[in-house]
Amino acid sequence: MTNSRTLYVDLTACTMTTGGVPYGLIANAAIVVEDGRIGWVGPEADLPGTYAHAARHSLGGRLVTPGLIDCHTHIVHGGDRAGEFEMRLNGASYEEIARAGGGIVSTVEATRAADLETMVALALPRVDALLAEGVCTLEIKSGYGLDTETELRMLRAAREIGRVRPMRICTTFLGAHAVPHEYEGRADAYIDEVCIPTLRRAHAEGLVDAVDAFCEGIAFSPEQVSRVFDVAEDLGLPVKIHAEQLSNLGGAIMAAGHGAMSADHVEYLDDAGVAALAEAGTVAVILPGAFYTIRETQAPPIERLREAGVPMALASDNNPGSSPLTSLLLTMNMACTLFRMTPEEALSGATRNAAIALGLGDCGILAAGKRADLAVWDARTPAELSYRIGFNPLHTRIFGGTS
Amino acid sequence: MTNSRTLYVDLTACTMTTGGVPYGLIANAAIVVEDGRIGWVGPEADLPGTYAHAARHSLGGRLVTPGLIDCHTHIVHGGDRAGEFEMRLNGASYEEIARAGGGIVSTVEATRAADLETMVALALPRVDALLAEGVCTLEIKSGYGLDTETELRMLRAAREIGRVRPMRICTTFLGAHAVPHEYEGRADAYIDEVCIPTLRRAHAEGLVDAVDAFCEGIAFSPEQVSRVFDVAEDLGLPVKIHAEQLSNLGGAIMAAGHGAMSADHVEYLDDAGVAALAEAGTVAVILPGAFYTIRETQAPPIERLREAGVPMALASDNNPGSSPLTSLLLTMNMACTLFRMTPEEALSGATRNAAIALGLGDCGILAAGKRADLAVWDARTPAELSYRIGFNPLHTRIFGGTS
Ligand SMILES: [Zn+2]
Ligand SMILES: [Zn+2]
Repeated sequence: MTNSRTLYVDLTACTMTTGGVPYGLIANAAIVVEDGRIGWVGPEADLPGTYAHAARHSLGGRLVTPGLIDCHTHIVHGGDRAGEFEMRLNGASYEEIARAGGGIVSTVEATRAADLETMVALALPRVDALLAEGVCTLEIKSGYGLDTETELRMLRAAREIGRVRPMRICTTFLGAHAVPHEYEGRADAYIDEVCIPTLRRAHAEGLVDAVDAFCEGIAFSPEQVSRVFDVAEDLGLPVKIHAEQLSNLGGAIMAAGHGAMSADHVEYLDDAGVAALAEAGTVAVILPGAFYTIRETQAPPIERLREAGVPMALASDNNPGSSPLTSLLLTMNMACTLFRMTPEEALSGATRNAAIALGLGDCGILAAGKRADLAVWDARTPAELSYRIGFNPLHTRIFGGTS
Repeated sequence: MTNSRTLYVDLTACTMTTGGVPYGLIANAAIVVEDGRIGWVGPEADLPGTYAHAARHSLGGRLVTPGLIDCHTHIVHGGDRAGEFEMRLNGASYEEIARAGGGIVSTVEATRAADLETMVALALPRVDALLAEGVCTLEIKSGYGLDTETELRMLRAAREIGRVRPMRICTTFLGAHAVPHEYEGRADAYIDEVCIPTLRRAHAEGLVDAVDAFCEGIAFSPEQVSRVFDVAEDLGLPVKIHAEQLSNLGGAIMAAGHGAMSADHVEYLDDAGVAALAEAGTVAVILPGAFYTIRETQAPPIERLREAGVPMALASDNNPGSSPLTSLLLTMNMACTLFRMTPEEALSGATRNAAIALGLGDCGILAAGKRADLAVWDARTPAELSYRIGFNPLHTRIFGGTS
């Protein structure tokens, strides 16, 4: 047993535990890793004698945070939307772009055309960009298939990514992402005939960790989403929601009523919505990459969420249309710059609260018993992680105790 | 001679030459590199027989652009401003931050305290971040010393970076960056007693490629800057200016009158200023990182600059206060997203027009006779370079013919 123990010393531990000093910071700290878990963390001076003989590794005074968690991505998808991005900047109208086959339709087409191997191969460079920033846990949604086979294939691709990379993958079924063209004008039929049966099949195959839906005028109504959530409940699956991104349909309140783990985007969330999230313990997942890309001007109600004690998480929302973003550090900077979140809130959002948004109790903070998912940074203070823009100070990533 | 020749094939050449197709794009292209220069570039089918026996390297269908050029940085500096960034987001007022020693004063103090070795060591991780994105030419300004010894040391540090990294460094003397505290209220005396004598010494030591000044209410007036420019002219040094960032003092017009290579920032540039730049052939250097960080709302007059035919360059403006940004690709995305520049303008801004802003005639485009500074990308189209956010698709950087 002793030889599976590692003792890290000469480090500042940014534990992200609550109730004490900011960031749960411990100077001159030591961290004991055993069997992939954190055995002990605290000031080195307080290290129990039982760990004195463990193999010692100096981290040279570096900062250690929990491994980062990207809790909302659409990172498995076919194609890209660079052509559409360029057309729009060259002055094309939405109609011209639609006629040229742009929009989510093009991503659905490209995703349907991609076999499992292709899906994985296309996603890996994006996944690797996040991994290089210390991301240890990554949520991946389906939702660009919108037919049974492709939705299942997307989720299988997500699971496969967890096999070929040292990263923990949480899958989310997002069949209710958009109405596919073959069901245009028949959203209810799509929910009943495709979305719900596919959810049941995906669950039976062990492909679903959570269920999500896009509740918006251009997607599904709270009532339609609620039907999907009822099935999730039957299956014992937790739910989350894309809500109040472009307008306020009350999706967050509905989702909170279903005990949702998170409500994501929430730019247009009102006071009643904030109160509902607080009451239900639902995390607000803030997605500045999409806000930035679509040039939204309505910021999420950060101050109200803060006052109400709603935990705030952050995520890249990596997707080819509204957030082709593969940096969680940049996401943190955007949250501070665009939304005036504090650097401590930003880091909580990419660690502790992101874990809560995924229903994970074993990561997101540095504490005895948690997974040894650590990020070691060439930084003096945790604020530096949010302050710099387009800079990656990661020194080492430790995943389940292995660097 | 033949063995110093390399023939690159299986590539799309994004030459950035003007007057032809967008991006000067050549499909199925070949590039001949000999003795550090581009010997030939064109469709592989047209390759002259004389190159047929050169060593062939397939680039696997990748995209090749000119090596990127970051034409405006303050990348040599002591300290960081992460603490100030955090204080502000935690609700501190400007007075509280100033009392805590924040602002440019803190950077000047930290820079004065840094010896040459420290300056270089602190800058290298930032330089390396740019290098990893295919940057081959990097401009570095002085301006955080504001005393003779520290200004000289900053420029020596910049030259040293060019010795320890495969990168071409252009130095810019920016003694007129701010009034140091010891000259508070005596800007004219600072210009006469410190700035100008230091410029002469730095020039005598071969440390100055160009002269810059910050023309703004919080810095120097057009008249004061003009005096520095007169000395530059005497010394045969080209000039450039930080102008119209926070207000319109007419700095750009003054600088255009001095035949400035570039006017940088220019958010508040008016029509007369645009006309002056067009007339003088002065490049407008657009710095979206600072715009983003300080949450400016007045965008530079991109459409008018475009209509007037003013060449637009882009740069990171890397500095610890208003743009702790070390990604030129992200700068390109910001230029598109925040300022509605097209992806082609963005890439021109980081290549062809950046070269013009630095007075360099031997780089910035792919053409026979130019330096073989190339960036090879895992991308299908040049628009992808601006479209993605926080993603680096660089495959290989070739600097002066050497990869
Ligand atoms: Zn999403
Ligand atoms: Zn500057």
